[in-house]
Amino acid sequence: MSDFIKACRGEPVERTPVWFMRQAGRSLPEYRRIRAGIPMLESCRRPELVCEITLQPVRRHGVDAAILFSDIVVPLVAAGVGVDIVAGTGPVVASPIRDLSGVAAVPPLAPEQVSYVDEAVRLLVKELGATPLIGFAGAPFTLASYLIEGGPSRHHEKTKALMYGQPATWHALCERLAGITSTFLGVQIRAGVSAVQLFDSWAGALSEADYRTYVLPHSKRIFESLVAAPSLRAGRSESLVAAPSLRAGRSESIEGVPSIHFGVGTAQLLTAMGDAGPDVVGVDWRTPLDAAAALVGGRPVQGNLDPCVLFAPWEVIEREVRRIVAEGKAAPGHIFNLGHGVMPETDPQVLTRVVELVHSL
Amino acid sequence: MSDFIKACRGEPVERTPVWFMRQAGRSLPEYRRIRAGIPMLESCRRPELVCEITLQPVRRHGVDAAILFSDIVVPLVAAGVGVDIVAGTGPVVASPIRDLSGVAAVPPLAPEQVSYVDEAVRLLVKELGATPLIGFAGAPFTLASYLIEGGPSRHHEKTKALMYGQPATWHALCERLAGITSTFLGVQIRAGVSAVQLFDSWAGALSEADYRTYVLPHSKRIFESLVAAPSLRAGRSESLVAAPSLRAGRSESIEGVPSIHFGVGTAQLLTAMGDAGPDVVGVDWRTPLDAAAALVGGRPVQGNLDPCVLFAPWEVIEREVRRIVAEGKAAPGHIFNLGHGVMPETDPQVLTRVVELVHSL
Repeated sequence: MSDFIKACRGEPVERTPVWFMRQAGRSLPEYRRIRAGIPMLESCRRPELVCEITLQPVRRHGVDAAILFSDIVVPLVAAGVGVDIVAGTGPVVASPIRDLSGVAAVPPLAPEQVSYVDEAVRLLVKELGATPLIGFAGAPFTLASYLIEGGPSRHHEKTKALMYGQPATWHALCERLAGITSTFLGVQIRAGVSAVQLFDSWAGALSEADYRTYVLPHSKRIFESLVAAPSLRAGRSESLVAAPSLRAGRSESIEGVPSIHFGVGTAQLLTAMGDAGPDVVGVDWRTPLDAAAALVGGRPVQGNLDPCVLFAPWEVIEREVRRIVAEGKAAPGHIFNLGHGVMPETDPQVLTRVVELVHSL
Repeated sequence: MSDFIKACRGEPVERTPVWFMRQAGRSLPEYRRIRAGIPMLESCRRPELVCEITLQPVRRHGVDAAILFSDIVVPLVAAGVGVDIVAGTGPVVASPIRDLSGVAAVPPLAPEQVSYVDEAVRLLVKELGATPLIGFAGAPFTLASYLIEGGPSRHHEKTKALMYGQPATWHALCERLAGITSTFLGVQIRAGVSAVQLFDSWAGALSEADYRTYVLPHSKRIFESLVAAPSLRAGRSESLVAAPSLRAGRSESIEGVPSIHFGVGTAQLLTAMGDAGPDVVGVDWRTPLDAAAALVGGRPVQGNLDPCVLFAPWEVIEREVRRIVAEGKAAPGHIFNLGHGVMPETDPQVLTRVVELVHSL
């Protein structure tokens, strides 16, 4: 079993595993080259391209896990929601949701609508060998914010206005989104990913009380679906999950695929995010891992190097990496990562050096 | 003594005092009218206009305190730093600071360079009668971020790169900025403000450890300067501070003017922000006031209604206001406020109703 999966399960590791959120992306010249002229959503629909982009950081940095190249809106677009990704802006929604009729217009996702993701994962599992592949999806709050605001938002004011003012509409929307996300993660799991990460990027905009009322039940339903979907339970075997050579044959064995839950600015939410039921809680750079470990109900943690530290001189980076690895020992498992995604201007050689350092400690 | 000042000092109040950050601003039609065609910085330099804009929300909402209409970059511009406020963008810095030579180019502020602020405060103190006027300034981290990034920033990556990579340059810059802020607040205090608020709007981007290393010493120096500036200590009398009829004569009596320290996204920083030495800690909407009260070293608290809640139906607003007033009782004093500034699209009638509700509880 890889150190990454062991750490997700709180088992002893040989070396602290490390990967980087957005490791496949604009920080890499080979990524910018291969993506040139191909729109974001189009690139997510080409399995060979997804495979190549996903592999690039594994080859270059020697990270302990790959993360599927995709975008948080891919399952929405696949289901038929009118969303495009505009370079320099982010997702732009054709008809922002304002009421129950808007929610009714969000269709469910059929697994065959993301067959290109299934195909990409299967290609990747073959290519990656012993290196685990992490699947991913966006959580209901973050997806809802895009759909209600019509795009990225600083204050999420329309989202909160709907959440507070039309709670039935809000919950109906989140139920639909949780359904889409469960289906999307299910496709990835059946195709062979070794773990999944549920991103609730914007949940940090909420207080814990509001998170527990409006968000947690929906995110929890997703985590439960990963282990409890009756059609997928048969044949469960934990050992299958860990044996790379058997990955191709584990399409009926999703129980036991570790899950990670991550958001930014979640100092006030870490306990609640653990209560949503992931195996691992991702932590940004605002809460040290020893403090985080005490908040997340005995779960392993992932994080928490400030991506901005990568712009500092190496001595500073080394000091921070050493501190984080030491503080991570307070948790039953620690997966080294950034506290947010790699920023496009990051020097990729620095990332490689961080991997080497983490592995040496 | 007004309920606002009593609450700042942790003394019993008749009614919970209430004001709103950015209460003087774009949510008010009378503000939009009077500002039409006048650039932001220009409007801050016209004492009569500042006076009128500052009074507008007091007249309209019946809030318990006025806050001087100004902008966080006003003292920088006055000192001679090349900054302009561009509508729709925010502050734009002509020569972003990258090194020690950039720091050397930041001049100190001479009180006479902000004589229009002195004049505006004196006008306001006369007009306001018994209603306290709050002075304000930006804290070193937030000002430094503008000067290093060249404008508003989402990730503060250049700021952090300089902070981590050139700590001597960082501390030199923050010392200069703390000096400017102390001078600016000193002018306001001598002119007669009843309290001051130090905004560290972006400090929430930091972990507590980094805040304590890179930010706290400079913010602390500002709070210390408010009570300890030797030239201003003579003639101190707490009773003078509270007696509106004597305000005009208290130019030598700044000790005892309460200070408030506020930032957004500071769930992880509340204890450290209290340790910086303000009388009151401002809390955004992410941390409930009873939890905040336990973190800020026995200080009164200010906040914490999510400005987005004001877009919800009245029943929701009422429920949240009642909850916040109840939770605020856990602190030795509570000044009701939003957890961030009033958003421009807010219905001002809702703000008036919130004031009435808070006063009725």
